[in-house]
Amino acid sequence: MATNTYTVTGMTCEHCVGAVRGEVGRIPGVTDVRVDLSTGEVTVTSEQPVDIEAVRASVDEAGYELAS
Amino acid sequence: MATNTYTVTGMTCEHCVGAVRGEVGRIPGVTDVRVDLSTGEVTVTSEQPVDIEAVRASVDEAGYELAS
Repeated sequence: MATNTYTVTGMTCEHCVGAVRGEVGRIPGVTDVRVDLSTGEVTVTSEQPVDIEAVRASVDEAGYELAS
Repeated sequence: MATNTYTVTGMTCEHCVGAVRGEVGRIPGVTDVRVDLSTGEVTVTSEQPVDIEAVRASVDEAGYELAS
């Protein structure tokens, strides 16, 4: 299992949280996605380490941005 | 046709706009709902005048509040 935390900018409400969780949760191998709306922290648990570019693409797809 | 404008507080993003439009648009007789996110103004067009309490209930249901 791998757990990584990313910072996402632009989320303003629980709908935004849901959009990010939905997209990131679809990445193959991802088993859990937790989002802290107040900090923008997105914690991704996966079977194997996930390519950061896959995370970035999913966050973009949801309409937000990975901070780094 | 009747057109009324209400102010809704708490909307922060386009998902919020969609939630309000969806709920208010379900009120019987409502034919159009326009939302200005920057001002919170929600303009409702309906066949007959709509009871403000129905609008309030729908806005509540969406997770927001009518300002007055």
